[in-house]
Amino acid sequence: MSVLIVGSTALDSIKTPKSENPRLLGGSASHAAVAASFFSPVNLVGVVGDDFPRRYLQLYRRRGINLEGLQSVPGKTFHWSGEYEANMNNRRTLLTELGVFEQFTPTLPKSYQASRFVLLANIAPALQHHVLNQAPRPKFVVADTMDLWLNIALPDLLKLLKRIDAFVLNDSEAHQLTKQDNLFAAMRRIHQLGPTYVIIKKGSHGSVLSGPRGIFLCPAYPLHKVVDPTGAGDSFVGAMMGYLAVAGGRIDDHMRQAMIYGSIVACFCCEGFGLTRTSRLRRSEIETRAKRLRQMTRF
Amino acid sequence: MSVLIVGSTALDSIKTPKSENPRLLGGSASHAAVAASFFSPVNLVGVVGDDFPRRYLQLYRRRGINLEGLQSVPGKTFHWSGEYEANMNNRRTLLTELGVFEQFTPTLPKSYQASRFVLLANIAPALQHHVLNQAPRPKFVVADTMDLWLNIALPDLLKLLKRIDAFVLNDSEAHQLTKQDNLFAAMRRIHQLGPTYVIIKKGSHGSVLSGPRGIFLCPAYPLHKVVDPTGAGDSFVGAMMGYLAVAGGRIDDHMRQAMIYGSIVACFCCEGFGLTRTSRLRRSEIETRAKRLRQMTRF
Repeated sequence: MSVLIVGSTALDSIKTPKSENPRLLGGSASHAAVAASFFSPVNLVGVVGDDFPRRYLQLYRRRGINLEGLQSVPGKTFHWSGEYEANMNNRRTLLTELGVFEQFTPTLPKSYQASRFVLLANIAPALQHHVLNQAPRPKFVVADTMDLWLNIALPDLLKLLKRIDAFVLNDSEAHQLTKQDNLFAAMRRIHQLGPTYVIIKKGSHGSVLSGPRGIFLCPAYPLHKVVDPTGAGDSFVGAMMGYLAVAGGRIDDHMRQAMIYGSIVACFCCEGFGLTRTSRLRRSEIETRAKRLRQMTRF
Repeated sequence: MSVLIVGSTALDSIKTPKSENPRLLGGSASHAAVAASFFSPVNLVGVVGDDFPRRYLQLYRRRGINLEGLQSVPGKTFHWSGEYEANMNNRRTLLTELGVFEQFTPTLPKSYQASRFVLLANIAPALQHHVLNQAPRPKFVVADTMDLWLNIALPDLLKLLKRIDAFVLNDSEAHQLTKQDNLFAAMRRIHQLGPTYVIIKKGSHGSVLSGPRGIFLCPAYPLHKVVDPTGAGDSFVGAMMGYLAVAGGRIDDHMRQAMIYGSIVACFCCEGFGLTRTSRLRRSEIETRAKRLRQMTRF
């Protein structure tokens, strides 16, 4: 079964203490779609301007991503520019140019309506609602978000939480949303807002699932060097949804394994700028690290 | 087999936004010894003043801890006072009164010399050396430390690292010692300084072992409420050593399980002020949470 992914399709200029990397392929939907593509067919919804490099369209296509829902319109592609500190944990935004994103109304092609796994990657909650309104019979809907929407679109986001199955956010966003310092207390509070599954991402500390079968502590794969963590969270949720879409049967039976695959693709994402590492991944490399991660957590 | 534990035996006054708790039983050796006592016999080395409450001696004895090496001398017991912020992560020291600790020279009674498992809990590296000089044929020596010794006794600490089997420290101390931002790069560097086993504690994010059998990602038990994290790290390493001392056979065969038990006793420690929760633990409660933790990490 295919995954429908809506989110941002962007150009990212990423600065680190050691290098500058202008206009990489980025955006939540790009990272999520490439990550999902290792597991299932992907239907992408997004928008790019007429400056969007042809090679990035080719990259999507090489990964077999269906681009029928990717609008190409006159104007500039969404451009984000950010700078990381030496420890690769703290980043600051240098520039955000919305470009064609400002007027974006996501529209689902007919062919996408069979996608019963829907990933509302990080994008304005109003647009996430708009996509959900067009999806006829979704089986499993996951939404990601970011601190910006908690600040400027909280009412929309709270309404969205009542329409989705799983909500993915990072630990600082969970604190911001619930005013709870304790992670597990925060998860309990988020369940009360709607979602059956709550997943909190903790970067290099892994992630935590709270769902019908209780808590799952999902480890991050140990990396000796992080080149660029941009898009790791999007890769995580993309790979997770790709795995779930083809697993079949009950979500609960596969959720933990799906998060492990999410964790593995996210770690590869951190090993290169933008999508440079992820887009060249082989499924066998994913399987090798998944096995190693299992070995590193046995007791 | 018994564990020899040397470290601080102190009175802790702990302030949180909600309460004040004067003169609790504390200190690295107290926490480690009580934690170890659920698994193995414990030989304690430390010093207290003549103000040390009799009920705390009774607490040690109730846990079966051998006090032959606990010196009781005229003067004041080491007193530490600290305050936690609302999120229970940041704490600041309000007061440190060394008291009888200033003149402390740890001496091993003859009866302790059979302890082949030696835990050098957090204490000045010079005292850790002094204890090691008296231990005739240790099988497994673990040392813990704190940022203070990295600041004021680094040469002693570096010498110690060449004499021990395992070194336990937290993530910020690992960064301080190695100047490496990346945790796994830091561990590699610490191995080069001596220890075969390096264990980095990450608080509520668990801990990581690097040893002859590679990396082990040890989870922390999820807590919905942290009352007082003081001594959690000491409890972790104490329980770990207690478990190893009775496991028999090769250290490598039991190290992961030992860390899991450390993690469990540490989580109980956080559920009460000072040793109030840990000292009333039952082994069956430890086993129940160890089973649950296993369940929460399976995939």
